[in-house]
Amino acid sequence: MAGSRHRAESRRLQLPLLCLLLQGATAILFAIFVRYNQETDAALWHGGNHSNADNEFYFRYPSFQDVHTMVFVGFGFLMAFLQRYGFSSLGFTFLIAAFALQWATLVQGFLHSFHGGHIHVGVESMINADFCAGAVLISFGAVLGRTGPAQLLLLALLEVVLFGINEFVLLSLLGVRDAGGSMTIHTFGAYFGLVLSRLLHRPQLHKSQHRQSSVYHSDLFAMIGTLFLWIFWPSFNSAPTSLGASQHRTALNTYYSLTASTLSTFTMSALVGPNGRLDMVHIQNAALAGGVVVGTASEMMLTPFGALAAGFLAGAVSTLGYKFLMPTLESKFKVQDTCGVHNLHGMPGVLGALLGALGAWLATHNAYGEGLEEVFPLVAGGHRSATSQAVYQLFGLFVTLTFAFVGGALSGLLLRLPLLGAPPDSQCFEDQVYWEVPGESEEEAQGPLRTQQPDTQA
Amino acid sequence: MAGSRHRAESRRLQLPLLCLLLQGATAILFAIFVRYNQETDAALWHGGNHSNADNEFYFRYPSFQDVHTMVFVGFGFLMAFLQRYGFSSLGFTFLIAAFALQWATLVQGFLHSFHGGHIHVGVESMINADFCAGAVLISFGAVLGRTGPAQLLLLALLEVVLFGINEFVLLSLLGVRDAGGSMTIHTFGAYFGLVLSRLLHRPQLHKSQHRQSSVYHSDLFAMIGTLFLWIFWPSFNSAPTSLGASQHRTALNTYYSLTASTLSTFTMSALVGPNGRLDMVHIQNAALAGGVVVGTASEMMLTPFGALAAGFLAGAVSTLGYKFLMPTLESKFKVQDTCGVHNLHGMPGVLGALLGALGAWLATHNAYGEGLEEVFPLVAGGHRSATSQAVYQLFGLFVTLTFAFVGGALSGLLLRLPLLGAPPDSQCFEDQVYWEVPGESEEEAQGPLRTQQPDTQA
Amino acid sequence: MAGSRHRAESRRLQLPLLCLLLQGATAILFAIFVRYNQETDAALWHGGNHSNADNEFYFRYPSFQDVHTMVFVGFGFLMAFLQRYGFSSLGFTFLIAAFALQWATLVQGFLHSFHGGHIHVGVESMINADFCAGAVLISFGAVLGRTGPAQLLLLALLEVVLFGINEFVLLSLLGVRDAGGSMTIHTFGAYFGLVLSRLLHRPQLHKSQHRQSSVYHSDLFAMIGTLFLWIFWPSFNSAPTSLGASQHRTALNTYYSLTASTLSTFTMSALVGPNGRLDMVHIQNAALAGGVVVGTASEMMLTPFGALAAGFLAGAVSTLGYKFLMPTLESKFKVQDTCGVHNLHGMPGVLGALLGALGAWLATHNAYGEGLEEVFPLVAGGHRSATSQAVYQLFGLFVTLTFAFVGGALSGLLLRLPLLGAPPDSQCFEDQVYWEVPGESEEEAQGPLRTQQPDTQA
Repeated sequence: MAGSRHRAESRRLQLPLLCLLLQGATAILFAIFVRYNQETDAALWHGGNHSNADNEFYFRYPSFQDVHTMVFVGFGFLMAFLQRYGFSSLGFTFLIAAFALQWATLVQGFLHSFHGGHIHVGVESMINADFCAGAVLISFGAVLGRTGPAQLLLLALLEVVLFGINEFVLLSLLGVRDAGGSMTIHTFGAYFGLVLSRLLHRPQLHKSQHRQSSVYHSDLFAMIGTLFLWIFWPSFNSAPTSLGASQHRTALNTYYSLTASTLSTFTMSALVGPNGRLDMVHIQNAALAGGVVVGTASEMMLTPFGALAAGFLAGAVSTLGYKFLMPTLESKFKVQDTCGVHNLHGMPGVLGALLGALGAWLATHNAYGEGLEEVFPLVAGGHRSATSQAVYQLFGLFVTLTFAFVGGALSGLLLRLPLLGAPPDSQCFEDQVYWEVPGESEEEAQGPLRTQQPDTQA
Repeated sequence: MAGSRHRAESRRLQLPLLCLLLQGATAILFAIFVRYNQETDAALWHGGNHSNADNEFYFRYPSFQDVHTMVFVGFGFLMAFLQRYGFSSLGFTFLIAAFALQWATLVQGFLHSFHGGHIHVGVESMINADFCAGAVLISFGAVLGRTGPAQLLLLALLEVVLFGINEFVLLSLLGVRDAGGSMTIHTFGAYFGLVLSRLLHRPQLHKSQHRQSSVYHSDLFAMIGTLFLWIFWPSFNSAPTSLGASQHRTALNTYYSLTASTLSTFTMSALVGPNGRLDMVHIQNAALAGGVVVGTASEMMLTPFGALAAGFLAGAVSTLGYKFLMPTLESKFKVQDTCGVHNLHGMPGVLGALLGALGAWLATHNAYGEGLEEVFPLVAGGHRSATSQAVYQLFGLFVTLTFAFVGGALSGLLLRLPLLGAPPDSQCFEDQVYWEVPGESEEEAQGPLRTQQPDTQA
Repeated sequence: MAGSRHRAESRRLQLPLLCLLLQGATAILFAIFVRYNQETDAALWHGGNHSNADNEFYFRYPSFQDVHTMVFVGFGFLMAFLQRYGFSSLGFTFLIAAFALQWATLVQGFLHSFHGGHIHVGVESMINADFCAGAVLISFGAVLGRTGPAQLLLLALLEVVLFGINEFVLLSLLGVRDAGGSMTIHTFGAYFGLVLSRLLHRPQLHKSQHRQSSVYHSDLFAMIGTLFLWIFWPSFNSAPTSLGASQHRTALNTYYSLTASTLSTFTMSALVGPNGRLDMVHIQNAALAGGVVVGTASEMMLTPFGALAAGFLAGAVSTLGYKFLMPTLESKFKVQDTCGVHNLHGMPGVLGALLGALGAWLATHNAYGEGLEEVFPLVAGGHRSATSQAVYQLFGLFVTLTFAFVGGALSGLLLRLPLLGAPPDSQCFEDQVYWEVPGESEEEAQGPLRTQQPDTQA
């Protein structure tokens, strides 16, 4: 009893102190380093000879807003499928993504836009920070329900740094192309989370098994997430590309790929389901694999047919992964994967990297014209052959997997520290550990009243 | 028993095989015919003398995303009002809209943008395909709960073709104006669905009557659909108009019309409700009629007052339709209309067509100036008088109704084929026929676990 | 019994007649006064020498759509946290916001864009009307559950007028800067609502206390509102600013401020919660305070660090307000505040006004360069010193509070008229007073069927 009271006391201070510490640190670093860039600074913008219509804001902000919706509404509600973990799914997504945006601004800023001792920010840094937050949320999906908010903040702290370095190595050092992040976001986030999950393996998780499924309404909430991810994924992949035809083509390819992954998910789900019945888990997740698989290749001259083929393959692989691979992953490899990120982000991400390498290998001046400069600048400039670019793309996948494994292992060791308030095996997938939870119906509703009545006891 | 097992076996393969067949066919046709257009192709875009800021993407993509949200989130959740049919409402919307996007790209491409043996695609074809999917979903609303996914895919297969032909006849052959689709989308989709529903009439539907209503939470889910349709309808009507003032004016008119239909819906709902109580069915649906009724006329010089008047009328007609006409439609005409599409899309669509004819009749060079070229090019070019344009508009309505009736009848005959897995009368409006369904609460939750535990029996 | 039947009869006509009257009046005023502006009128637009790409639509419509989403989806669902008041929260938001858009178009039009006897409308008037509707919804939040729809329409009627006048005094007469409305929207709406609530004080409200809390699912619905408000707030604050760097910077500052208010809300909520547990009320509301607090200052050269600091402070103040101030407000000052608008909009709004004054005081030609003209035109033009601008900003806050108190008091007197159909103390926070309500589950579902079966009694 005393120990339990002590644990409660320590938890009371743990999350607030960690939040304060992290926010304090990023605020100080913002004060020292972060400045408006030329597009957002009042003096710098007017110093140049620009029309207001040229401001990057008008070309990227609508895409940014779609990406922002995906990160907070999409990921948040997609993870709200669990019957008793909706507050945590939405709330912890909110918390760690908000922190990741600040921290990624710093980490990515130091690596990508550090000039004259300052990080310069604008809509492009906002998009990049949201991308990084997306990768953290993918890893979160692997360990959903089995980690507390303090653990998740530390996960974000570590993962953002490794994400930034991996991204820097791929995009800046190796000249790898990966606009929509098949490698840097999906492969990285998924395998980071899976290795982490392996290190946090709970042999006694069956004690919480009854809470690890959905109920009817929670599956409908999850569909909010699925649909907002699905409709805005074309904006996700096209948000950071070159302007003009590249951005336009990227959105178009992603749109087609997603229609095909939806069809293949329904195909496979009915095929493997009991009595031909569809499974909501597949629809909620595998239908999105078409967005992941063209993350690298959608800016390339993939052709609309290529987008359909890639999407169909990814949806099928993802659905079959949920059905057949996931139980094996847990039983044989001791990898518990709450949201099935291996099926939605891991395998489709790797496929996407391979597709990107294929796209690079097939790139010709003939097919791209002057647009080659935008998609494969090193090939267009004569610094590399298309084959060489393809090899670099494959090497980028290898580097990403390495960073993900090392990062996942490091974060696993960190998150196993006993003081971090992980839920006990019997309390996994349960909001009540971290939240004041009202009842399910009027009679049970015990939650705190909004307009708190004056305490009659006081 | 053997028969039932056989039916289950045949259903297990039916949906997968149909999906595969349809996806295979569209993929082959994509490979042969579909190519990037000048705005999305790397080589073609840079071959022209364009600034990236001129790319159509920047003028239409934000509108496209709003339309895309309406189709998948708006229609999907609006139909999720049924207490036990949320998985099907959302899932089948997802499935048939995804297929319709591919198939419409082909059908509309052959009819509208087939040059040099190829269909050329970009953001405009994306918008048009989403519009076509919207019409299919309207028809789906009429038969919601009484049709299986295989039937719905065949419905989409047939309706997309007839939609494309009707649209081609109106817009290309007859020179009819219908930017937001009062005729081509709403009237067509509604009467197609109603005729189909007549042919699928179930005299014994009362066996499922207890499932044909909403519960408290399902009405809140439906409001997600209503509100996203309502807020983005200005983008829907303006997405395909001429750029500049036309697009701007179309959005503005739609915005005003919707505010008025909302007020008239509340007015009428309270007036006809028991004890003056409001009915959620009216609010969820009739409040949207203001978007439908200005689908044709919102690009015209309707005036803000005209938009209010049209919206008010449409909301009132729609609400009264739900209250008084729907029971008669069923009892007298044997038309069961689950979502009341006759009230939301049918009557307001016809009103919208008439309003468009009125708008054409009143069009003058004085009111439109040089903008007449954009709204009524044939009148501006002297090929037609305004009165003649008005007559063409009316004729367009007649053609649309004809195509809708013929198409609905054909699809009714097709969908009555016994092998297509329609649910029995006692199992209508029930997800369990097609889905693995978890329970409503923790105790009942029997759904498949996400992280499937290793099977202890195996 | 007779009295109750009479009340029911009078209510049956009250809402419809009021709606009709208000809609009729605005429609007539629209017919007389409202005209397309140069950007939406077919003739006027083409009369000028414009490229279509110059149309204001392309610079402001995406922001408008985000604001529109916030008003209808954001506010509506945020208020849907009550267990038995979701229909009213969503439905009355829908009704009064739709009316407010029309009425604000007129009121703001007379004050801001009345030229040659006409009000000229376009995307900017749409944004401004949505802003005004937002202020009305904030006041609605204070009295949520204790007012009927007729009362709320009268509230909107009065508040829109006072909002318009206050906005005119601040922006046009005093030259105060307030792009995102810390003063004109949040402070005004909150204190208007709180004074109104004081006048509508119900000492016997404990009779409805059991309905005044949330249930598990209603808190998830409320998170839809929270998240859409949070992600689109950068668009809200930047929607009406000068184009170019100003708009870009405003969005960026708001984005950072919101991340910090999210972190401080989690910090404070865990710190003050029982056993360190988080409270959904705080997360749903206080995390948004970062958007409110930079409503005035986000267009200024706040610096990214300044945005973080402001957001952190606002989130903390807001959370502590929910915990400690709200019970006192009710017990000592008899102000019942259902949604806690004092914590989310009141205090952060006042802080935002002070921050704006500080920002004005610190404005230099050096920091803003030629951009000073856009943010502080009177300072740039030499008509005022920066210090003088800061004093005007403070005076603007004082004027706003005065208008809010007077307006709230007037509307309180008006809404206390007994014939307006306020719910009895025991029926507050209950949808059934105004709505036909289905049951919570299949067995209880008594709601009207969509496809009404032919009445077997008839």
